[in-house]
Amino acid sequence: MTASHGFDELWASLLPLGLDARTGGYRRFAWTDADLDCRAWFTSAATQRGLTVEADRNHNLWAWWLPPRWSGEPRNAFVAGSHLDSVPDGGAYDGPLGVVSALAAVDGLRRDGFVPRRPVAVVVFADEEGARFGVACIGSRLATGALDPDRALSLRDDEGTTLAQALSQSGLEPQRIGSDREALDRIGLFVELHIEQGRALGPAGSALGIASDIWPHGRWRLGFEGEANHAGTTLLGDRHDPMLTFAATALAARQRAHENHALATFGRTMVEPGATNGIAASVQAWLDARAPDQATLDALVTSIWAGAADRAALDGTKVTLDEESVTSRVEFATALRERLQGTLGDLPQLGTGAGHDAGILAAAGIPAAMLFVRNPTGISHAPSEHAERDDCVAGADALARVVEDWAGA
Amino acid sequence: MTASHGFDELWASLLPLGLDARTGGYRRFAWTDADLDCRAWFTSAATQRGLTVEADRNHNLWAWWLPPRWSGEPRNAFVAGSHLDSVPDGGAYDGPLGVVSALAAVDGLRRDGFVPRRPVAVVVFADEEGARFGVACIGSRLATGALDPDRALSLRDDEGTTLAQALSQSGLEPQRIGSDREALDRIGLFVELHIEQGRALGPAGSALGIASDIWPHGRWRLGFEGEANHAGTTLLGDRHDPMLTFAATALAARQRAHENHALATFGRTMVEPGATNGIAASVQAWLDARAPDQATLDALVTSIWAGAADRAALDGTKVTLDEESVTSRVEFATALRERLQGTLGDLPQLGTGAGHDAGILAAAGIPAAMLFVRNPTGISHAPSEHAERDDCVAGADALARVVEDWAGA
Repeated sequence: MTASHGFDELWASLLPLGLDARTGGYRRFAWTDADLDCRAWFTSAATQRGLTVEADRNHNLWAWWLPPRWSGEPRNAFVAGSHLDSVPDGGAYDGPLGVVSALAAVDGLRRDGFVPRRPVAVVVFADEEGARFGVACIGSRLATGALDPDRALSLRDDEGTTLAQALSQSGLEPQRIGSDREALDRIGLFVELHIEQGRALGPAGSALGIASDIWPHGRWRLGFEGEANHAGTTLLGDRHDPMLTFAATALAARQRAHENHALATFGRTMVEPGATNGIAASVQAWLDARAPDQATLDALVTSIWAGAADRAALDGTKVTLDEESVTSRVEFATALRERLQGTLGDLPQLGTGAGHDAGILAAAGIPAAMLFVRNPTGISHAPSEHAERDDCVAGADALARVVEDWAGA
Repeated sequence: MTASHGFDELWASLLPLGLDARTGGYRRFAWTDADLDCRAWFTSAATQRGLTVEADRNHNLWAWWLPPRWSGEPRNAFVAGSHLDSVPDGGAYDGPLGVVSALAAVDGLRRDGFVPRRPVAVVVFADEEGARFGVACIGSRLATGALDPDRALSLRDDEGTTLAQALSQSGLEPQRIGSDREALDRIGLFVELHIEQGRALGPAGSALGIASDIWPHGRWRLGFEGEANHAGTTLLGDRHDPMLTFAATALAARQRAHENHALATFGRTMVEPGATNGIAASVQAWLDARAPDQATLDALVTSIWAGAADRAALDGTKVTLDEESVTSRVEFATALRERLQGTLGDLPQLGTGAGHDAGILAAAGIPAAMLFVRNPTGISHAPSEHAERDDCVAGADALARVVEDWAGA
């Protein structure tokens, strides 16, 4: 069998939604029109296939093949899927590839006359990227109980809109969100197929890979507070310029990451008041840091923070550090990886620095695994993110074979 | 005579317009509702005083005391005034103090029965701060011919709105803007009263000062272009991170300014796409640079630019430099300064790094001078900018005495 026919049509129909014509990237932020369009696209595509779509308490969408509504024994269903939201100017593949592949796998299996003997579902997790409210994997974190619902509801976007307000404005219930073991305990095996974020599969000569583990990682907000003043009249010695403290910290973070064989990035800042002829009053900057192990990550963030505080003393500024989200190292279960190897052959196993809903579920004891589809350039979270069409179809076919293994005779 | 009564009432009535309750600062950007409210306030205040308000081709507002409309000989009128627009989160005094003081001076003179023998006007120059369209002193630069009207009309704000569109949306004619010697040649003496931007008058024990000169200064936009990528999966060695190039440039600019006894500031940046978990694709950063003389300013900007290019080579990024506006050094005419000294006594004379409409006019050969009102903290372009009420009234009284000198018997 091949999933190619279903894949191409599904892929083409999703591609225009939330596309920014200026940048060529996607701006599918959670609960914006673009995101709601993607959710409606999913409901429509699944319904056209005779799948039954339901939203759980946290507004993750589940499309059930058989049975129409799940009512069987726990830990029995095969579930594949990913997310549809994006980072600012994200690529087309990160998230959507896992959803489209799962639907295409269902198409291919059905065309071949396959009838599952266990429940099968395609899932779309809500707000995986955290681009709008600052916390990643909100849908899966809420379901596992890793994120407190009251904290989640009070998260604010850059416009000051809370998640609670965003949900209400989308016509959704904010009140019921929170831990949802009932939904998650249906899962016997969750496989998230995802475009590779890096470029290891190309040199390995493989279209597909299996995730071994996810590095511990997190987001911290550094607030640099200085004193707004006139850029043309304030003597250098009288200044309390938070831009300088931020700049020194951004350079030091890169150096500390290098020394620790880790990653540290400042990709988002907010400068107030933002006048060309004014010294900034404050700079907010978000640190993304990742390391192979927790001790290294802790040491990395501590050293960046200590350096920022030292520099602030020099600049006459103040600096604060707020942890927005931290995810511990996740190792995907060896038994599940071996089962995928048994079905799909000896695929390369890759660690990754990127967080995923599959990692959140695995950390909560839900059987979860990940498949990667080769990324020739390694570019990710950018418009030029790309995977070859044949590799994508190979991924959908692999998912279909895992369904046959799990839900077959 | 004293201008105190008129001053307090005028000041109180302008204070609420465009105030941001969250920051305590003003956001009176050109041609926004807040700015249009301020212009309407001026028209109303002037009309209530029996002054005749007219807009010139560049939408600068002139309120004539006598004659109701100017029709006399050239270079005969006394004009006082300043601007009403603000930087983001600006203070209450920068601009408005000069307008309110001029109106209060008229009130005081009239209460004393003074009848001018030459034309007297209060002027409000449009878009002095350049906070919205990036170029400062647009109203006066257009009038003197220092700014090309086609270039001005095509300037864009952060939302992509052109100045032409902003004027049209305000119900104003964009087509007629441009050099307006007719309006400027009416001026026999223009005095712009302004809050001090710095803190030299306090130690000198004087409520007022006279401007000697304005440093050459300008704004340059530096564009740092890199490659967007995933913050959690892209190896440090594979990155082209423009945030690092910007950060190194911001620190170097401060160092170069220090070495040149000059000023250099980055107070405004725009990071795209601005994802916490993404390496930036680009950073736009605006450099404000000022120096005591043109050669030093040129050397300063050249060295900052060269350093940025060197660092870009290291980071695998690209950097571009665009000059947005440059203003040459202006020395206010000695004869006018001596005339003010003769009327007001031996006031301290101060140079300043800040640009002003009076500087634009002086550079174009229009007789112009400036009075400063003491700023106890030196804070400027920030909500806590402050001048004592008695010093403000002393400023208005000083303006009244200059009118008596210029337009009296």
